[in-house]
Amino acid sequence: MVQIEEDILGQNNKYAAANRRWFAERGMLVLNLVSSPGSGKTTILTRTIDDLGDRLPLAVIEGDQQTSHDAQRIRETGVRAVQINTGKGCHLDAHMVGHALDSLAPENGCVLFIENVGNLVCPAAFDLGEAHKVAILSVTEGDDKPLKYPDMFHASDLLLINKIDLLPYVEFDVDRCIQYARRVNPSIKAIQVSATTGEGMDTWYRWLEASRQLAALGL
Amino acid sequence: MVQIEEDILGQNNKYAAANRRWFAERGMLVLNLVSSPGSGKTTILTRTIDDLGDRLPLAVIEGDQQTSHDAQRIRETGVRAVQINTGKGCHLDAHMVGHALDSLAPENGCVLFIENVGNLVCPAAFDLGEAHKVAILSVTEGDDKPLKYPDMFHASDLLLINKIDLLPYVEFDVDRCIQYARRVNPSIKAIQVSATTGEGMDTWYRWLEASRQLAALGL
Repeated sequence: MVQIEEDILGQNNKYAAANRRWFAERGMLVLNLVSSPGSGKTTILTRTIDDLGDRLPLAVIEGDQQTSHDAQRIRETGVRAVQINTGKGCHLDAHMVGHALDSLAPENGCVLFIENVGNLVCPAAFDLGEAHKVAILSVTEGDDKPLKYPDMFHASDLLLINKIDLLPYVEFDVDRCIQYARRVNPSIKAIQVSATTGEGMDTWYRWLEASRQLAALGL
Repeated sequence: MVQIEEDILGQNNKYAAANRRWFAERGMLVLNLVSSPGSGKTTILTRTIDDLGDRLPLAVIEGDQQTSHDAQRIRETGVRAVQINTGKGCHLDAHMVGHALDSLAPENGCVLFIENVGNLVCPAAFDLGEAHKVAILSVTEGDDKPLKYPDMFHASDLLLINKIDLLPYVEFDVDRCIQYARRVNPSIKAIQVSATTGEGMDTWYRWLEASRQLAALGL
């Protein structure tokens, strides 16, 4: 069983390395958005596209077990998007992403968002060739999630704490959440946002732009 | 023994978290430079200071078991530097760094380089509150080091491959080295430099400036 897992991950890592080279040659910033279902990934994306789409070239790969609702929501913004349906699969893998790139044909220097299947467990283990995993956690989910799903928060470089407009109505201690996340990943960065009201989104955009400058260096 | 190690790391992590808050409040970019002895850390630093010192506020904490030669080399450049002597200690810890900050008094928004003790093993486990560990590997050391010292390359976000001016004279396959590093850390970035000839240093400087923009956001 362990052997099988190693083989699967080893195979995935080869495809991920090929994707990473492909992205670097094109100076693209590629982000793998991971979260549980309903954290607001697609809403963050559509708001980001509305706010930045005129300034930055953007593209999206949507992962879901079924339906192409999310890709449809993205395409309505005018941005290029493809949907990957994983069927029974609980995560995207690097091979699927490689195929999606063929039909997506993202432009050089763009920011490519890969919205993973809503799942705080399995996507942590599968490298897609991204520059960063970005974990999204909404305040309605509870501040203990980083301790309960340590692999995901360990694997992510940035944590977006979403739906902060709901903080007055839920038991969620932002400081405690960040402290828990840093217990599993001391240097994880955290930004508090509300994709509904727009609060905090500017900081996320500045993070995106600075990260994109690094990607443009092939870094 | 395992219990003792956990206690030591737990204690260190508290100090590291305090340092990290302190850095974030001041918008500082803090880098923990790790490598084996003789990889050229101090030469990279002095060249970086010569080239960027007029444009960016810089400060340095030097770690060594004995001597203050390195801090002396740095101070000759005109940049603020303090030396930590670890005595028998094989790595810096977050508590030592906290104390060094009192006497260093780095300015807000600066880039603070922490040059760790030359050691590819122990510093990997000790968070100092830095934004990134930067591993430096010189081409005279062999391209297999990322596999032999995986913890260090796993913990680092950037790999500087130094002394590339010596590539014609040594057996060192840069591509293989990067491939090995990515086997333990798929998203590690790599820049090839020679601190002696200056080749590649511009890319390192652009990485520093983009990373500093993120730090200025408290990220």
